Amino acid sequence: MLKFGLIGAGRIGRIHGANVHARPGAELVAVADFDLKAAQAFAAETGAEAMSSEAILNSSDIDAILICSPTDTHAHLIETAARAGKAVFCEKPVDLSSDRVKTTLQVVEAAGVPLMIGFNRRFDPSFADLHKRLRAGAVGEVEIVTILSRDPAPPPVAYIERSGGLFRDMMIHDFDMARFLLGEEPVDVQAFGSSLVDPAIGKAGDVDTAVVQMRTASGKLCQISNSRRATYGYDQRIEVHGSKGMLRAGNMHKTTVELATGAGLTIDPVQDFFLQRYAEAYRLELGAFVDALSGGAKPSPSGIDGLRAQRLADAATESAKSGKPVQISLD
Amino acid sequence: MLKFGLIGAGRIGRIHGANVHARPGAELVAVADFDLKAAQAFAAETGAEAMSSEAILNSSDIDAILICSPTDTHAHLIETAARAGKAVFCEKPVDLSSDRVKTTLQVVEAAGVPLMIGFNRRFDPSFADLHKRLRAGAVGEVEIVTILSRDPAPPPVAYIERSGGLFRDMMIHDFDMARFLLGEEPVDVQAFGSSLVDPAIGKAGDVDTAVVQMRTASGKLCQISNSRRATYGYDQRIEVHGSKGMLRAGNMHKTTVELATGAGLTIDPVQDFFLQRYAEAYRLELGAFVDALSGGAKPSPSGIDGLRAQRLADAATESAKSGKPVQISLD
Amino acid sequence: MLKFGLIGAGRIGRIHGANVHARPGAELVAVADFDLKAAQAFAAETGAEAMSSEAILNSSDIDAILICSPTDTHAHLIETAARAGKAVFCEKPVDLSSDRVKTTLQVVEAAGVPLMIGFNRRFDPSFADLHKRLRAGAVGEVEIVTILSRDPAPPPVAYIERSGGLFRDMMIHDFDMARFLLGEEPVDVQAFGSSLVDPAIGKAGDVDTAVVQMRTASGKLCQISNSRRATYGYDQRIEVHGSKGMLRAGNMHKTTVELATGAGLTIDPVQDFFLQRYAEAYRLELGAFVDALSGGAKPSPSGIDGLRAQRLADAATESAKSGKPVQISLD
Amino acid sequence: MLKFGLIGAGRIGRIHGANVHARPGAELVAVADFDLKAAQAFAAETGAEAMSSEAILNSSDIDAILICSPTDTHAHLIETAARAGKAVFCEKPVDLSSDRVKTTLQVVEAAGVPLMIGFNRRFDPSFADLHKRLRAGAVGEVEIVTILSRDPAPPPVAYIERSGGLFRDMMIHDFDMARFLLGEEPVDVQAFGSSLVDPAIGKAGDVDTAVVQMRTASGKLCQISNSRRATYGYDQRIEVHGSKGMLRAGNMHKTTVELATGAGLTIDPVQDFFLQRYAEAYRLELGAFVDALSGGAKPSPSGIDGLRAQRLADAATESAKSGKPVQISLD
Repeated sequence: MLKFGLIGAGRIGRIHGANVHARPGAELVAVADFDLKAAQAFAAETGAEAMSSEAILNSSDIDAILICSPTDTHAHLIETAARAGKAVFCEKPVDLSSDRVKTTLQVVEAAGVPLMIGFNRRFDPSFADLHKRLRAGAVGEVEIVTILSRDPAPPPVAYIERSGGLFRDMMIHDFDMARFLLGEEPVDVQAFGSSLVDPAIGKAGDVDTAVVQMRTASGKLCQISNSRRATYGYDQRIEVHGSKGMLRAGNMHKTTVELATGAGLTIDPVQDFFLQRYAEAYRLELGAFVDALSGGAKPSPSGIDGLRAQRLADAATESAKSGKPVQISLD
Repeated sequence: MLKFGLIGAGRIGRIHGANVHARPGAELVAVADFDLKAAQAFAAETGAEAMSSEAILNSSDIDAILICSPTDTHAHLIETAARAGKAVFCEKPVDLSSDRVKTTLQVVEAAGVPLMIGFNRRFDPSFADLHKRLRAGAVGEVEIVTILSRDPAPPPVAYIERSGGLFRDMMIHDFDMARFLLGEEPVDVQAFGSSLVDPAIGKAGDVDTAVVQMRTASGKLCQISNSRRATYGYDQRIEVHGSKGMLRAGNMHKTTVELATGAGLTIDPVQDFFLQRYAEAYRLELGAFVDALSGGAKPSPSGIDGLRAQRLADAATESAKSGKPVQISLD
Repeated sequence: MLKFGLIGAGRIGRIHGANVHARPGAELVAVADFDLKAAQAFAAETGAEAMSSEAILNSSDIDAILICSPTDTHAHLIETAARAGKAVFCEKPVDLSSDRVKTTLQVVEAAGVPLMIGFNRRFDPSFADLHKRLRAGAVGEVEIVTILSRDPAPPPVAYIERSGGLFRDMMIHDFDMARFLLGEEPVDVQAFGSSLVDPAIGKAGDVDTAVVQMRTASGKLCQISNSRRATYGYDQRIEVHGSKGMLRAGNMHKTTVELATGAGLTIDPVQDFFLQRYAEAYRLELGAFVDALSGGAKPSPSGIDGLRAQRLADAATESAKSGKPVQISLD
Repeated sequence: MLKFGLIGAGRIGRIHGANVHARPGAELVAVADFDLKAAQAFAAETGAEAMSSEAILNSSDIDAILICSPTDTHAHLIETAARAGKAVFCEKPVDLSSDRVKTTLQVVEAAGVPLMIGFNRRFDPSFADLHKRLRAGAVGEVEIVTILSRDPAPPPVAYIERSGGLFRDMMIHDFDMARFLLGEEPVDVQAFGSSLVDPAIGKAGDVDTAVVQMRTASGKLCQISNSRRATYGYDQRIEVHGSKGMLRAGNMHKTTVELATGAGLTIDPVQDFFLQRYAEAYRLELGAFVDALSGGAKPSPSGIDGLRAQRLADAATESAKSGKPVQISLD
């Protein structure tokens, strides 16, 4: 039985904690949060114990740590947990600074502990199935990857200001999907960003609408577009054009109901946001982490995956500012 | 070059006439109509000559007759044309009385001329493709045929009164499709009819909403439903459930445009009515008639197809009135 | 906290039991099964106690009984539980004999306990949403209800022989949906049944492919078709044609992945069978039962709903045998 | 009656010629082609006269010229026709050199004759409807335009070599659609091109797979992707994300037939190529030209539209070569 400690009992922490709780072979034994009451409440729901993050990290009884606290605590917590010999699952990103990410990964490497980064979309059943078929050759060689990703509504400006910007905060998921699907590292990045949704986001120095295109060494191409607003719900679509065909995966609608009137045929809106859309992905992601730990395999996506997506986000951020293409070096 | 005379220059007559005019190897040479001006106008458009129907039937210059006049003139015109040795294309039905249809077919048989009945749906590209795949075994043995057919709006009551009733006037097309798809004759018919759309239709002794189910000798089943009103356009769908899968063909939308908003994803309404939906079917139907005449083949659907669909309509009319199932005898 | 006892720890019993276990405000305290080991295993998983059904029915500690045992035990268990003053949730059907159902409902009525029948499809999110919009007038007056329902593969003949026949065993769900959607009782029933899937089913005196049509007193119409085999998965679709438009709800596909090649655009098959397709429906159904008990409301669908669907199944069985329409009397 | 002369009786010339022939109010009177027999054959089909292009340009009897000859003759023919006072419809592009295009437009301007450029996609019923709804505010302000465009198979390398390259030959249509949909001029262009489909195309100095992104002065964004090969047919899709929703329009499938088996639900492939997909667009395009001439309105898309799309193609060609973004100046 793998014993887990959860650090951070907010929205996403409670999802991962509940998934551990529900999984045979895994047990949530400890919960920490800056807000002690939140930790206690969630501990009560899951039969765990509320304790400080230090206590969790020092407990010889705990095998694995779930890091779901604010971004600026991630790198330090990962390093501490690694030094304590614990397996780590950390929500993206490891840190807003790629250099700091690199340092942290060295600590993890030295400690020899497993580290998994929370790129949940890889585990979405439709995206995972598309990826599996792609690797099995269903459309031959990958040529163009197209990713459309839109949030229903922008977060508060206070969040934006600490987020690292759209490319690091939102498009990072798409960069990870791009790498996952291309099967090759992008080496050239071009980006445009605009502030079309909320002028306050522009004032805060960020963009809310952006497009990126990338090229790999062998010439495979990728386009990504993001908007912080979609009136019609959480829009998450990918498409892969290959030498032998095309694969795509799209949105989940709330129901299958269709209404036909003189105005046309209307289908339900898509699911609201990531908690609904990716509920199953979060469950499968945690399961993959537990399975990797149980089976002694290296969990994936790895810390390196986290670093490389981050570097693409850095490059896009730079390109959107300078108006110039940016070349990626991987080492 | 096959020379055609058109009798009846109304809406459907002009469609067939224009299709002859546009077809290489066929020529529209004469047009008749009770309304002489209508005949003259359409003759002018197509380079044909306006003349009486008698003159058309007697002209030694004309090879084939298109009968698009009112229903109560069909049987007499077919017989006269057959005796004059002309090939005949006649809009459905031959006559509202199956006995009269039988007599007419005997005249045609004796004269040895080709006769084709205008069951246009068999030529709809989607329905024709479905039929072709069905016969090629794409879904194995046919087990259940489902036909949904709805007009956008009811015709005037004056039309209803002379129409022979919903089963003979509207559902006759579905009976023909049922026979076409089942590949076997239905032997038992059950029907329910209601007047839900327009009380005046009920007062006129007809129904405007109806369901029918049929069984063939080997046990294949078919369900048909009709409504004289569909707010969302002309609804024409068929579905065939077989031992190895299911084939279906549906409506054509006006465009491919989709609008996504908070209210959902809305697709354009379906095409308005039969002139739009079946424009291509009419073209292909006429082409099949010309090809059959040119190649010396028997045109299909034949007069017997017309008679058998009519008998199913008779049976459904009787079943809807008596509340009892009706058995069909084919001879 | 409502305390539940489960009688029958087979496939469907374990689903309901797990849904009780997961629901705040409800607790599974006891499990019975003819197979004691099955009861013990499921009790261990859910923290309940394995005991005999008699013990459960006599326990003063238990508020509500879930009856998931074989059909021929339902009526007796409902009556015993009712006399013991317990709320009852029973899988359909109460009994294969409508007369026996009637007697049982009288016992429940006399005891004044709540009874809910497991017509799970009413709780499918898409079907429930369609029903809600229908009642809110989204398509005006209901005119034609069309229900297509196909199982992926037939059950063993041994099951068929004890099932009461296709109309009572499989189409009963569609009869319930028909009543639910029509909003009016059907009064006339016509049926055809065939044995096309498995000759052994025909030898056992049952059919495996069937169509039914029904009419209500006001003339609303309904068509249902069933097959015991669908190579493409569990096919469950409903469509309601009304005076102001059409509502329909269809199948859930396994993923949203689409593959485009020269062979066309291929979408994933539909979900395999009822355990996948209706997993959410089962969860919501049990929740509705718990809510009704907690709030003092009468649970729905009621015993009367069970009886009336059964009578439609009886009528269809009779019509399919005699070839004649059957009139329903409701009292 | 407007009298037309056609220069170039190849594939596209015959389409435009037939559309003139079929249109009331317009008449095809003369046909020229380097291949005299081709001109004679098409003239015979349409009741026109075969003559030299010089004779057509000098004929006082001809009101309008359709230029469908090879690209390198366009500019000269437009200028000659303009000086002769004739209205001109010219297939894209006016010339592969934007400078030459500019000169030609000055000649047209000086002559004061109407000039329309054959950007047929603007007239596709679905794209035109999308554009109309966009301008009517259906999705608020335009924010991101996404255009996916793939040919079924690459043209011969001999064609590629004289084509001006993918951006000027193929993506030019998408640049025109981008301008049409954005409602604002792009000012910054970034491009990547690869040779993934056919190495011979790369050897010829061209690319066969490309992505472009553009930004307007107000920050609206656009992404385009092209491939010279799509195994699944002619892929032509556009999508506009706006402040109040999303509009998209997609491919036309050959039929509506769907086949469901254990392998999934398969829809027909999309229509083969531009002659099928855009048949209706060509008809409407020619009609718009005739209507503009008849009504004295300026035809659209204009010569300026041709020039501006060309400049975007030039910029993309340069960016794909240099790896750097290119700024567009409009004057």
